[in-house]
Amino acid sequence: MNFRGRDVVSIRDFTKEEILHILDVAEEMLPIAQGKKKSDLLHGYIMASLFFEPSTRTRLSFETAMKRLGGEVIGFAIPTTTSIQKGESLADTIRTAESYCDVIVMRHPMEGSARMAAEFAEVPIINGGDGAGHHPTQCLLDLFTIRKEKGSIEGNKIALLGDLKYGRTVHSLAYALALFKVDMVFIAPPELQMPKEVVEECKEMGVKIEMKNNLDELEDIDVLYVTRIQKERFPDPEEYKKVAGSYRVDLKLLEKAKDDLIIMHPLPRVDEIAPEVDRTKHAAYFRQTFNGVPVRMALLALVLGEIE
Amino acid sequence: MNFRGRDVVSIRDFTKEEILHILDVAEEMLPIAQGKKKSDLLHGYIMASLFFEPSTRTRLSFETAMKRLGGEVIGFAIPTTTSIQKGESLADTIRTAESYCDVIVMRHPMEGSARMAAEFAEVPIINGGDGAGHHPTQCLLDLFTIRKEKGSIEGNKIALLGDLKYGRTVHSLAYALALFKVDMVFIAPPELQMPKEVVEECKEMGVKIEMKNNLDELEDIDVLYVTRIQKERFPDPEEYKKVAGSYRVDLKLLEKAKDDLIIMHPLPRVDEIAPEVDRTKHAAYFRQTFNGVPVRMALLALVLGEIE
Amino acid sequence: MNFRGRDVVSIRDFTKEEILHILDVAEEMLPIAQGKKKSDLLHGYIMASLFFEPSTRTRLSFETAMKRLGGEVIGFAIPTTTSIQKGESLADTIRTAESYCDVIVMRHPMEGSARMAAEFAEVPIINGGDGAGHHPTQCLLDLFTIRKEKGSIEGNKIALLGDLKYGRTVHSLAYALALFKVDMVFIAPPELQMPKEVVEECKEMGVKIEMKNNLDELEDIDVLYVTRIQKERFPDPEEYKKVAGSYRVDLKLLEKAKDDLIIMHPLPRVDEIAPEVDRTKHAAYFRQTFNGVPVRMALLALVLGEIE
Repeated sequence: MNFRGRDVVSIRDFTKEEILHILDVAEEMLPIAQGKKKSDLLHGYIMASLFFEPSTRTRLSFETAMKRLGGEVIGFAIPTTTSIQKGESLADTIRTAESYCDVIVMRHPMEGSARMAAEFAEVPIINGGDGAGHHPTQCLLDLFTIRKEKGSIEGNKIALLGDLKYGRTVHSLAYALALFKVDMVFIAPPELQMPKEVVEECKEMGVKIEMKNNLDELEDIDVLYVTRIQKERFPDPEEYKKVAGSYRVDLKLLEKAKDDLIIMHPLPRVDEIAPEVDRTKHAAYFRQTFNGVPVRMALLALVLGEIE
Repeated sequence: MNFRGRDVVSIRDFTKEEILHILDVAEEMLPIAQGKKKSDLLHGYIMASLFFEPSTRTRLSFETAMKRLGGEVIGFAIPTTTSIQKGESLADTIRTAESYCDVIVMRHPMEGSARMAAEFAEVPIINGGDGAGHHPTQCLLDLFTIRKEKGSIEGNKIALLGDLKYGRTVHSLAYALALFKVDMVFIAPPELQMPKEVVEECKEMGVKIEMKNNLDELEDIDVLYVTRIQKERFPDPEEYKKVAGSYRVDLKLLEKAKDDLIIMHPLPRVDEIAPEVDRTKHAAYFRQTFNGVPVRMALLALVLGEIE
Repeated sequence: MNFRGRDVVSIRDFTKEEILHILDVAEEMLPIAQGKKKSDLLHGYIMASLFFEPSTRTRLSFETAMKRLGGEVIGFAIPTTTSIQKGESLADTIRTAESYCDVIVMRHPMEGSARMAAEFAEVPIINGGDGAGHHPTQCLLDLFTIRKEKGSIEGNKIALLGDLKYGRTVHSLAYALALFKVDMVFIAPPELQMPKEVVEECKEMGVKIEMKNNLDELEDIDVLYVTRIQKERFPDPEEYKKVAGSYRVDLKLLEKAKDDLIIMHPLPRVDEIAPEVDRTKHAAYFRQTFNGVPVRMALLALVLGEIE
């Protein structure tokens, strides 16, 4: 396996074996991510962090990942501070930025933008989310979290809850879980259910899929993956209003859950999970957030060729 | 004394002995703050700098403090680039940020926000100003400046001038000076005088307090501490207009001052101190600004446990 | 030659010999700028990057320059996050910032602001563009690019194309090229031609100047320097509309060009150069962008006194 110089645009760019290798490297990174061990593995390297759209989690965890490994970061957190205001094309911005760095992490509101950037750039591009498109590092940290919390990815029954229609990162996650032969339950109001093509693909990959419109039975679920209803992805605000607040995970719901159920959420959450749940053993979402650091460390070290 | 892991929310969190210890450590930091001596004391540590409200001085001096000690910084300078836009609670933002760092410095417009953050976070929280609430690092650098310029904090007569009503950092300073048995003069237009409870507390702590409405006599003052009238803190713009520009320190006023009077100001200033004063030996405010660096270095090294 | 502590406000601050020395130092910096060689030359130094106006290229390349040399960066990318909002003067902002750093890089929309800052600051000020005024590091990287691409600055015939009236960085470049005895052609619509005083000065310095209104003949040109028409510099939007899109470099135009013609552009471009040109050997503008890094490294190392 060779990761040096590779782009990370979509989870589909990787085989199952490659995904497992990334998770193994992330595992080794844990003590550095926790600040317990110091590292200068990426000393002298510069990561450009180009956020054409706001983000706390993805940006800060990538920056921490780079800095915990001794690397440096340049970039912008909002596009209004850049030449884009002066009418520059994305291709030119990328070709400029790559003159100044060894790897580019980007988030952009336009689907397909990361793929386009990867075509223009000679340095590796890591996609930190391209609008309604892909978000492969989120998918990898989700897999890492499931493996870490439950011992393995295989053998779990995983429920995906929330906006399964517009939240396309959930489509990537469903694909990745199917790759690991995980049976899934898709729980969403009818307006927000998983698109047919995703369901079909999962079934063709040999996994069992159930579809539900509400949350009432959690008895046999091992992992409950909750998503936020992303107002900004709805073409019609009326459609948003109908489904906003249509589900909420609280203590009452958890009475019927397995003892070792874990609850995940990519965060930020709004009202989907009641704060009272935070104090239960089920709540894995803050540990999941932390896992973004070792996973992103692994990717940076791999594409920069400092780890094989 | 043990500072490792402690939060710095209010100056009232520290005893007089602890304050003196912080100032002593800051004194040792001076050559590093001046760039004359290099240090890697905080190498491998990450500080998250979360500014939910704009600030030049506090943010940049904290970042310099961390970097002069070999540490790294992540964060944001304006909240619009973060998940707060997506409706995330402060508690969640803090729990996320702490996954990525070893210490959090935050400024937030809401009074009490730093205390709340400290309750949720496991890493130390340093309050860089919580709206109309506390600003303990400003208070510490003020004390450091007085001690450095005058040889000691005790034994001076200190005048606090300006907005003593809404400028609550001045309330903390008055408390801290009373702790050091410093007699004070509060000079403000009647609408902006020091609140009764602050005056009472100082008196109970055994110091002499005078109250004046104008600046005419500086004869026996050792330290003149000038504050800006903060337009943004006034509930009523009409009230602001009445007092704006009601005092100004200029060369004429200084004719009547002690030879070794020093003038301090937390900056930014607007019109409270005439630029002609900058060239006099009385002007200590740019040195005071610099002192933010060694004081913040001391706090970072102490709460991270690298200095006892 | 001694650069330690010097300000870099205008290209006119340097003799021809000094300019050549900067370019020689930049040449030595190349392997570090490319990430092929690691350096800690500026370890322990802090650069304040004060951008009162947005910029991708200048800001990011200065930050990379500092970081590739082991130095650290503090600062802001947009003025709304600073005390300027609270009414602080530029002089006070500069005196504050210099308390926290060893060198200041600033971009400001007001002509003359960098000179004023240099008068107030004790640390070196490097002008990253002061509105319609100077942009000396752009000029130096342009000279570096010409020398690197063509072997020498002297002996070339260089055409400057575009907005030669308002684009005052082009005035500095014309002056600098005249210093190297380079004959020039100024190509611009009549409304945007080079001001008389610039043309006169170049002629007095002993170089030949031609003036044209269109692009039809490139036969004897060695370097074609294209500029963007900067909408934001036009006092009258009607005047802008008349000239916008009045010239464009494309493959057809290049049919008549010298085989080793190089095309330069300070970027960002809008429509002045067709994307099809990017793939030709003539396109030097992305290499030119990269050259900002070694040139800015050289300046930082020189004014900080780490290289003589």
